[in-house]
Amino acid sequence: MPQQPTYIAVLAGGSGTRFWPAGRASMPKQMLALDGDDERALLRATVDRVEPLSKRPPLIVAPGAMRHPLRRMLPELGSDSFLWEPAPRNTAAAVALAAYAARADAPDAPVLVVPADHHVAPLGKYRTTLRAMAARARRYDGIVTLGLEPTRAATGYGYLERGRRSVRCAAGSFYAVVRYREKPGKALARRLSADGRHSWNGGTFAFRPEVFIAELEELQPEIAQPLERAFAHRGKRGFPAALRRAYDRLPSISVDHGVMEEASAVEVLVSDVEWDDLGSWDAAARHRHADEDGNRVRGDVTAVNSRDCIVDAQAGHVALVGVKDLIVVRTGDTVLVARRGHGQDVRQVVERLKAEGREDLLS
Amino acid sequence: MPQQPTYIAVLAGGSGTRFWPAGRASMPKQMLALDGDDERALLRATVDRVEPLSKRPPLIVAPGAMRHPLRRMLPELGSDSFLWEPAPRNTAAAVALAAYAARADAPDAPVLVVPADHHVAPLGKYRTTLRAMAARARRYDGIVTLGLEPTRAATGYGYLERGRRSVRCAAGSFYAVVRYREKPGKALARRLSADGRHSWNGGTFAFRPEVFIAELEELQPEIAQPLERAFAHRGKRGFPAALRRAYDRLPSISVDHGVMEEASAVEVLVSDVEWDDLGSWDAAARHRHADEDGNRVRGDVTAVNSRDCIVDAQAGHVALVGVKDLIVVRTGDTVLVARRGHGQDVRQVVERLKAEGREDLLS
Repeated sequence: MPQQPTYIAVLAGGSGTRFWPAGRASMPKQMLALDGDDERALLRATVDRVEPLSKRPPLIVAPGAMRHPLRRMLPELGSDSFLWEPAPRNTAAAVALAAYAARADAPDAPVLVVPADHHVAPLGKYRTTLRAMAARARRYDGIVTLGLEPTRAATGYGYLERGRRSVRCAAGSFYAVVRYREKPGKALARRLSADGRHSWNGGTFAFRPEVFIAELEELQPEIAQPLERAFAHRGKRGFPAALRRAYDRLPSISVDHGVMEEASAVEVLVSDVEWDDLGSWDAAARHRHADEDGNRVRGDVTAVNSRDCIVDAQAGHVALVGVKDLIVVRTGDTVLVARRGHGQDVRQVVERLKAEGREDLLS
Repeated sequence: MPQQPTYIAVLAGGSGTRFWPAGRASMPKQMLALDGDDERALLRATVDRVEPLSKRPPLIVAPGAMRHPLRRMLPELGSDSFLWEPAPRNTAAAVALAAYAARADAPDAPVLVVPADHHVAPLGKYRTTLRAMAARARRYDGIVTLGLEPTRAATGYGYLERGRRSVRCAAGSFYAVVRYREKPGKALARRLSADGRHSWNGGTFAFRPEVFIAELEELQPEIAQPLERAFAHRGKRGFPAALRRAYDRLPSISVDHGVMEEASAVEVLVSDVEWDDLGSWDAAARHRHADEDGNRVRGDVTAVNSRDCIVDAQAGHVALVGVKDLIVVRTGDTVLVARRGHGQDVRQVVERLKAEGREDLLS
């Protein structure tokens, strides 16, 4: 009997808060071109990246509100390839959705869950890594996750501690996961990134549907039970309404916190692929080409005596005079001027605008 | 016989280059609201300031290309109150124009020539100063100029060295002018501003028309002769065409360099009025109210963890995150982000845009 092709699920949820003003309610991160000099939206690039990994078209798990722009962005995919979340409920629900959909559509295939908003390179090595994860998931009665060899003391990522090695493959080695750690402080990050036992948490998973669902039923029954009931309607007319009812009651929790940290069997494939979760303008710009003055510029920009700036002129022109280490993002209605390294604080602007009812600048 | 009322001429020429992107070919400096928290255009504020000084409405010497917006800005003035320069020819020609117009219209009145783009305060003291200059010019067979007591070692201004005192008045004392100095270097500026013998050159003049014209005929015959011929048509239909023919041949030279430095009789009224020629965004912002973080903000601005910034959101919104000592000026089509103290370098952006043929951003 031929193998079922891998069931690839792309998680295309999330907001653009940290990429305001380019990121908006109507323009979440996965719709932005944030990966270095790649002009494609992150989701478009992700789909292009995973497409050769399976004969089955990928499933896109995405916010229902984004239905029209995402269908336009991915015209080659049929309506079956989209699973519209009625509301944002964080990653535990999104991964669960992928697992239930896979169980309904292709119960014997391994599921590969890939975020739509990360930077990875080089492409060939990354694909080898994902293939190895999917192959391991066919046999392994647990959840396989992706770990990246730390290359700096990053405080913005989660870390996985590895234990005993299980198997080797072309892409690296699989290890049991001993412990999850949330984003550490600076000192701890220095230690974790250098001790040879920790990897960055790549937020990328492979499992057989029933394996993940069994863990979910054990650890998050308040997610498993409503989704189980909703998926009784899968393929029928009542499914969207059933899903909406389920989502009304789902808790909002991350898959790491809600499932992975307590799951009974987790292995990590430790890879030295170049990876970044593109968590802020600072991160996004790291992968862009810099000119001779160290400026990383996109759009219509004039820089005079200026160095090491990140500029995105999405609408109109930007002129820099005598400045350095700035992030400048101009849209039709506003401009962000931030100090490099303070990209995370962009959220504070968004919070303040929300408090002021400035929907004009957020939607 | 009653005295002729003072003939006030407001010089409203000049470009907005140093105030790009708010300043444009179509929006020169005197049309911008650059004086502290005053929401009026500089020219509007200047006319309001000098209006009570004379029963005669002021004469506005301005670029012909600005005819429509300036008539709209000053609706109370009749068409007789404007003298349209056919082309920019620097201040010697503009002051000469005022002198010839005054000689034709009111030969016995003193002419008071006031730039349209300076900051002065307080208003009462400033008016007293101008009145004293005009009164002195009625009697004095020379040119009276305004000098300001230096309050810092400014390198952006010209300096006047004073000699013997001639007369005192309520507004200060008049002195013979011994020497003009162009904008000095930092070390010289420190010396000049502290030696008690130098004043800043306020670019404001009082004279009887025949006195200035005599100096002009002596020192700048290539300005005097064409204008003399043109003013033979004053009040007739052919005047604009005659003026255009004259302007075609006029040299472009400043009144300081072309006339004042070599004039046979010049007196300076040294005043301690607060004065600034508003030569850059840095200068313009000095007179604005600062908030508790030292930010001087106009328009729709959200500042997070940011200090000592100058922000002008002329169109749209500006967000600052974690920055300090910046100048940010946003218009509908561009945004300038400059380091404070580098406001003069804004010209370099304009030069580069000119070289690139970017009329869209300059006009």
